[in-house]
Amino acid sequence: MTPFVLWFTGLSGSGKSTLAREIAKYLSGKGYEVETLDGDAVRDIFPGTGFTEKERNEHIKRIGFIASLLEKHGVIVLASFISPYKASREFARKRCSTFIEVYVSASVGECEKRDAKGLYKKARCGEIDRFTGISDPYEAPERPELVVDTGVESVEESVRKVIEYIQRYL
Amino acid sequence: MTPFVLWFTGLSGSGKSTLAREIAKYLSGKGYEVETLDGDAVRDIFPGTGFTEKERNEHIKRIGFIASLLEKHGVIVLASFISPYKASREFARKRCSTFIEVYVSASVGECEKRDAKGLYKKARCGEIDRFTGISDPYEAPERPELVVDTGVESVEESVRKVIEYIQRYL
Repeated sequence: MTPFVLWFTGLSGSGKSTLAREIAKYLSGKGYEVETLDGDAVRDIFPGTGFTEKERNEHIKRIGFIASLLEKHGVIVLASFISPYKASREFARKRCSTFIEVYVSASVGECEKRDAKGLYKKARCGEIDRFTGISDPYEAPERPELVVDTGVESVEESVRKVIEYIQRYL
Repeated sequence: MTPFVLWFTGLSGSGKSTLAREIAKYLSGKGYEVETLDGDAVRDIFPGTGFTEKERNEHIKRIGFIASLLEKHGVIVLASFISPYKASREFARKRCSTFIEVYVSASVGECEKRDAKGLYKKARCGEIDRFTGISDPYEAPERPELVVDTGVESVEESVRKVIEYIQRYL
């Protein structure tokens, strides 16, 4: 097995964490050492992390560093972060040995329609500032290893695509 | 083997990294999975990290989080950070399962006498601001698992003390 970092990037509510959770379940079931790193969970531990471009980039770079350390010690890492800026995603890619960028490409319209956490509503009425896709930019990946369109595919289909892709490393 | 986090705290130039390096060599030689995290090296990757109390605490908390993740996956972590504030050392301790605080207790006088990197000289003439022990506080541990006095002991003696202590986890 070659350890790798599966990096899910996409808008809030696009389904990144759901996919990561399913794939983590699959990999753990096969006996692999797996770590999931999730934007909300990490921000809970470090509530001081802000949402400016600089702060978002620093945050993502640190996660990239953590992912690379775990990968180096044989852990498969599933990272789910909006990670809207190319610069810090590229930093993460460069630090890791096998970096698989998965672009979870549901549109703003689609994510807003679901709005499971009610965040889009808050962003629309200005209760949340700097909300990616509404009042803050999202730089879509240009050459991601994988694209899953959760606006069209079912969760099962997207999960299957990712699992098919990672077979070469297992 | 029970994985653990060896956390070296002490002034700049007290010998933290030297001890960590020797112990890492010993553990790697025995076939254990080891990671060394070092203040200078990590700050090189994140040059934006400042030296105010708030920034130092945030920095150390993040390192504690990283250490705990590695420990969770079976890696022995050797962390060498001045880590001058109790609050963030305690945060690190709480996140880790087996946290061994090693207080590298050489005095300011002793560290300044060596001054291998010429930093104390710069701090004395005000070229470096917020330098721990000179112009910034150091909160010594109250109940560290181990104290090594590198002002009195040789490197070999200090290394032996640490290696003796960690045998219970190997």
